[in-house]
Amino acid sequence: MNSDCIKVFAPGTVANVACGFDVIGLALDAPGDEMTVRRKDTPGITISSIEGAPFLSKEPGKNVAGVALQAFLQELGQPDMGLDVTIKKNIQPGSGIGSSAASSAGAVVAANLLLGKPFTQEKLVRFAMEGERLASGTAHADNVAPAIMGGFTLVRSYQPLDLIRLQTPDDLWVTVIHPQIEVKTSDAREILKQQVQLKDAIRQWGNVGALVAALYTNDYGLLSRALEDVIVEPVRAILIPAFYELKLKCKEAGALGGGISGSGPSVFMMSRGEENARKTAAVMDQVYAPMGVDYKIYVSRINTEGVRQI
Amino acid sequence: MNSDCIKVFAPGTVANVACGFDVIGLALDAPGDEMTVRRKDTPGITISSIEGAPFLSKEPGKNVAGVALQAFLQELGQPDMGLDVTIKKNIQPGSGIGSSAASSAGAVVAANLLLGKPFTQEKLVRFAMEGERLASGTAHADNVAPAIMGGFTLVRSYQPLDLIRLQTPDDLWVTVIHPQIEVKTSDAREILKQQVQLKDAIRQWGNVGALVAALYTNDYGLLSRALEDVIVEPVRAILIPAFYELKLKCKEAGALGGGISGSGPSVFMMSRGEENARKTAAVMDQVYAPMGVDYKIYVSRINTEGVRQI
Repeated sequence: MNSDCIKVFAPGTVANVACGFDVIGLALDAPGDEMTVRRKDTPGITISSIEGAPFLSKEPGKNVAGVALQAFLQELGQPDMGLDVTIKKNIQPGSGIGSSAASSAGAVVAANLLLGKPFTQEKLVRFAMEGERLASGTAHADNVAPAIMGGFTLVRSYQPLDLIRLQTPDDLWVTVIHPQIEVKTSDAREILKQQVQLKDAIRQWGNVGALVAALYTNDYGLLSRALEDVIVEPVRAILIPAFYELKLKCKEAGALGGGISGSGPSVFMMSRGEENARKTAAVMDQVYAPMGVDYKIYVSRINTEGVRQI
Repeated sequence: MNSDCIKVFAPGTVANVACGFDVIGLALDAPGDEMTVRRKDTPGITISSIEGAPFLSKEPGKNVAGVALQAFLQELGQPDMGLDVTIKKNIQPGSGIGSSAASSAGAVVAANLLLGKPFTQEKLVRFAMEGERLASGTAHADNVAPAIMGGFTLVRSYQPLDLIRLQTPDDLWVTVIHPQIEVKTSDAREILKQQVQLKDAIRQWGNVGALVAALYTNDYGLLSRALEDVIVEPVRAILIPAFYELKLKCKEAGALGGGISGSGPSVFMMSRGEENARKTAAVMDQVYAPMGVDYKIYVSRINTEGVRQI
């Protein structure tokens, strides 16, 4: 019976890593969901339990894990295979740390393990992107790619899909604060301007190039300088309470830099080493404690593995 | 007497490497200028000979090498030191392969060697940027940085100046064709739109990230895919005769990709290995031979050293 059931850890992810808006994402070690995918005798996909987010639909066609698995089984040529999914959500939907991506990614990686790895990682990303399409209307890859591939990923192109697993510096940590306020992805997208200044765009791609170079050379100083977003952050910062104060104080406390995670409301900061990441967490706590907003703080090494069997 | 004279090779450079408009440049092994800088007893900078470009001014204040050396001597605190410069130009001014940058860079590197290396590479780039200010009105670094540092360089930022020497794949070659037509940098700049579509900018910085990743991982396939410019090339291609035909046929012949060198009229194509680079040269020749435009073609490994003593 056990060999017909795979249990996985499905990590939270940070998309829109500063200058890398829409292209660079990374995987976390915490928070993450736990999921099982199990063969069953009756045909079709079922989602028998969702713990921690009771308002999510258990109808496979209305649940990102279900939709991702449907794409998986379709491509496998066995659309009626019987699979049951259980989900324990630790990543809160709407947090901006890839909650839907974790469910989509976890489901397809677990199914792939269950069935003897019929698909490549890139195929799995494509299936999980269908979950993202359900969640946000767009089949974006910037959360599901790092969730599945681990570490830092770059989505170079969608047509054709071109995913690059970047190198991760040895001692890079992430601190995330999730203020429990609602920022809708659609709202966060609507306030962006469709046109940007060429000079700003040039500064942004200079930073993207530098960020990637920093990852390959373990150059934390360069990484810190490159963690700058002159296009999106100035527009979206207003959605996050005390964003600039938070960022400034975290950097004063030793963080390398950071920005808005995904489309918010979570904010991530990177640090060299666990000690700096924990100092950053303490500073986040100091800034948010008096504000009358509930929040959670996570300290995590970069997860270089992605979804993993547990 | 000889120890008071330094002779250098000052390389041509390709700025605006495809998606890396305004930020990524590279140094060539050919063409390049030869320059000497010599101590002399009388105070002040003189330019005693310029071979190959008789129309360039020998007045130090009106010659990029002179202006760069003035900046050098000023910072040294010896503005009246006597230095004489000779220049043998092989890089034609207005070619788009860093003619002014070579002269500026060659002069300051030679002077630095002559005087026992008082300055860092970054300082030398700053001095050479003053030559660029004279040549084009803007103290840009995207040619002088690779000319001085060698290989691929990234200008992350001007305020403050932040230069990054990127890694160069082992077997990367460049083929450059210089059609002998005039494209003024100022004209090439004027036709650019000051605003660009956000979606195009995102595609561009995805490509920049991928290009840098390809350089660090020796991934020629990725390099090829990343050599795409969706912002500037579509506007400037009209300035270059048969640009798209040239590019297409070079890629069909095995080139990885390329684009307009600097602000043109030269066009560069990258190849893996000398053989592909020479095939690319042959294709360039076939495309341009019937067109009634004079042209020169250069085949060169990436120059990882920059200006060097000869």
